[in-house]
Amino acid sequence: MADVTAERDITISAAAGGVTAPLGFSSSALHCGIKASPAALDLVVIASDALASAAALFTTNLAKAAPVLVSRRHLEQTQGMARAIVVNSGCANACTGADGMANAERMAAETAAPLKCASDAVLVASTGVIGVGLKMDRVVAGIRSAAGSLARGKGSEAARAIMTTDPFPKEHAVTVDTPRGSFVVGGTAKGSGMIEPNMATMLGFLTTDAQVPPPMLKRALTESARDTFNAITVDGECSTNDSLFALASGASGVVIDEELYPALLEGFLAVSRELALGIVRGGEGATKVIAVTVRDARTADEARQVARTIANSPLVKTAVHGADPNWGRIVAAAGRSGVMFDVDRATVHVGGVLLFENGLPHDDAAPQAEEQLKKSSVQIDVSLGSGGRGQATIWGCDLSAEYVRINGEYRT
Amino acid sequence: MADVTAERDITISAAAGGVTAPLGFSSSALHCGIKASPAALDLVVIASDALASAAALFTTNLAKAAPVLVSRRHLEQTQGMARAIVVNSGCANACTGADGMANAERMAAETAAPLKCASDAVLVASTGVIGVGLKMDRVVAGIRSAAGSLARGKGSEAARAIMTTDPFPKEHAVTVDTPRGSFVVGGTAKGSGMIEPNMATMLGFLTTDAQVPPPMLKRALTESARDTFNAITVDGECSTNDSLFALASGASGVVIDEELYPALLEGFLAVSRELALGIVRGGEGATKVIAVTVRDARTADEARQVARTIANSPLVKTAVHGADPNWGRIVAAAGRSGVMFDVDRATVHVGGVLLFENGLPHDDAAPQAEEQLKKSSVQIDVSLGSGGRGQATIWGCDLSAEYVRINGEYRT
Repeated sequence: MADVTAERDITISAAAGGVTAPLGFSSSALHCGIKASPAALDLVVIASDALASAAALFTTNLAKAAPVLVSRRHLEQTQGMARAIVVNSGCANACTGADGMANAERMAAETAAPLKCASDAVLVASTGVIGVGLKMDRVVAGIRSAAGSLARGKGSEAARAIMTTDPFPKEHAVTVDTPRGSFVVGGTAKGSGMIEPNMATMLGFLTTDAQVPPPMLKRALTESARDTFNAITVDGECSTNDSLFALASGASGVVIDEELYPALLEGFLAVSRELALGIVRGGEGATKVIAVTVRDARTADEARQVARTIANSPLVKTAVHGADPNWGRIVAAAGRSGVMFDVDRATVHVGGVLLFENGLPHDDAAPQAEEQLKKSSVQIDVSLGSGGRGQATIWGCDLSAEYVRINGEYRT
Repeated sequence: MADVTAERDITISAAAGGVTAPLGFSSSALHCGIKASPAALDLVVIASDALASAAALFTTNLAKAAPVLVSRRHLEQTQGMARAIVVNSGCANACTGADGMANAERMAAETAAPLKCASDAVLVASTGVIGVGLKMDRVVAGIRSAAGSLARGKGSEAARAIMTTDPFPKEHAVTVDTPRGSFVVGGTAKGSGMIEPNMATMLGFLTTDAQVPPPMLKRALTESARDTFNAITVDGECSTNDSLFALASGASGVVIDEELYPALLEGFLAVSRELALGIVRGGEGATKVIAVTVRDARTADEARQVARTIANSPLVKTAVHGADPNWGRIVAAAGRSGVMFDVDRATVHVGGVLLFENGLPHDDAAPQAEEQLKKSSVQIDVSLGSGGRGQATIWGCDLSAEYVRINGEYRT
């Protein structure tokens, strides 16, 4: 069999729209009354025209919110099929006990009724204040209204309806052309936003009109998230509600098998990378995106661990914020990451400028690096010189006084 | 043999002075010219009248500064004996290559000469800017001058000479009365201070006039540090230079054996706790000390891991800064700590006020907790309800905009 999925045979191009860009998906968003401002969308139903393959990744936090527990159970019961996802913002439905579980189940049931599907074919996500119950009368009225006005082309409203303190909505879509036909991948996400108190909840929703068996959908979601949604960090926190969903309608007629799997993965990666970087750019108080790439580690996992330690270091984040080419903080963060390497063989580049090599600084290059650090996007490259080929990139952001202000304010 | 070391037989009382409070120690501090301001002390020699037992704990960071490597080697060569410690501030002598190693060795040799001891009987510590070489002409002249003016009663100058951006000097001493006589434990420490660029270097120096075999001294240092210097966190960073030293002169004539070991440990704990809390109080931009106590964990190590995750959480630190009784952030930090527990059995108290229990919040108590959070010292108590008896306390501080300002400024 010819290797039709060689890279040259797959073309990825940007497409219009977001989560409803692929065929077979519609959405409807509205203000049901969870958020205070009547202009703020706070509820959205994302639906597939028919039962779709479904997969999800959930927070690893032990404190899982009710919608996470309910969605996980539904996916188990259906073995990876879903008709719709109902999402509210403004209230996380986390730490809400048995009432919270009942409310999340009811959100699914109320969404399922007008769609004439089983309750467990509906997934649920919530983001917002923790420890506060949902106003179910408003939520139920909202769901009934939304279910009656599902349409394509309203993806941008979906992107706005899932926001909390995100400074801008995030959506993206691509067309994937393969020798066996074209399909579309779309998506929307919300990032770390504290609303009144709260959690840096990450919610992501990917859709595709490719036809994908559920186990393969889960695999593509897991593999693409590793280098995108799971490769970003705003403050190292991990919330009660973090969830990433994928739905595949099959409406394009393109069947994904092992041969076409790389095309699906590329599509997922392209959309996820854009959404994940949007989350970092919109990080609380962030003024700069920092890409930390670690090379020449013994394994990719070790490279990732070092990159994550650097990207989460408050000293590195504040140095970048202040445009300080402080390679010493980068070396010290790498040195405490738990990964073994020889500092004398490591190198550090900031914005492409070599600052540290053979255990010694290149301080003459500091002014050049400082110029690079003034940009809104900063590249930090660390080679561990361990002789291995492990490499990984983690995207983070700087730490500003604004972060402290946002997160230190008492919930009103 | 009677259990003379039962708690009732040991009395700890505050004593005057610091690192030279125990018999047999002297010090001399001066400005040799590393720091810019002529008024700023930047070099100190702490000496024992005769060869003393010595022990040290060093940074676990892979990037170890030259003085750390030299001190470690000297202690190995002498099998735990030392005559003096020479310390400079203003320059970390880290990431300085072979020259840095030679300079650290020379600091030891120059200190040893006037004291007429072997070079490896001198330990070395440095704190300050990384990646910059020591001005050895000034350092050598300083050492010669200091070695000629060693005296008791100048411990407070030693405490000032090791400071970088610490807002205040830290020293403490206690008298330990036992049925077999009294001895004194003294000490000084410096905390996380960025000077111009830098590292949150922790340096600590403990002295005692008890007579202690080197292995027992190491044991007391390790055990006391676990619940004091190693139980504090300002920003989760770990520097190239972190070092904690102990010297025991034996001049009191009190011989520490297994029976009296608890008395030595209590003395070390008393001095170390005071110094460690001073470091947290003087943390960069810190306005509040936060004590996080985790109880009912399966093991003390697990309790420590949860407490450390909470104390390092930027969301918890900013919430405390803003006096926000945000128990949700505490639960979420515990939940991502890597320690397994049942969130529904956990409880959270802030300032003694119950805020979370049985998986549900007590929001009616939030105003009371908010009042507690306005104090300069905040207690967070988490019970994991795991049925175990593991318990640990970690001390941290809040995260303020001032931290960002201090660490984001370009080194001048």
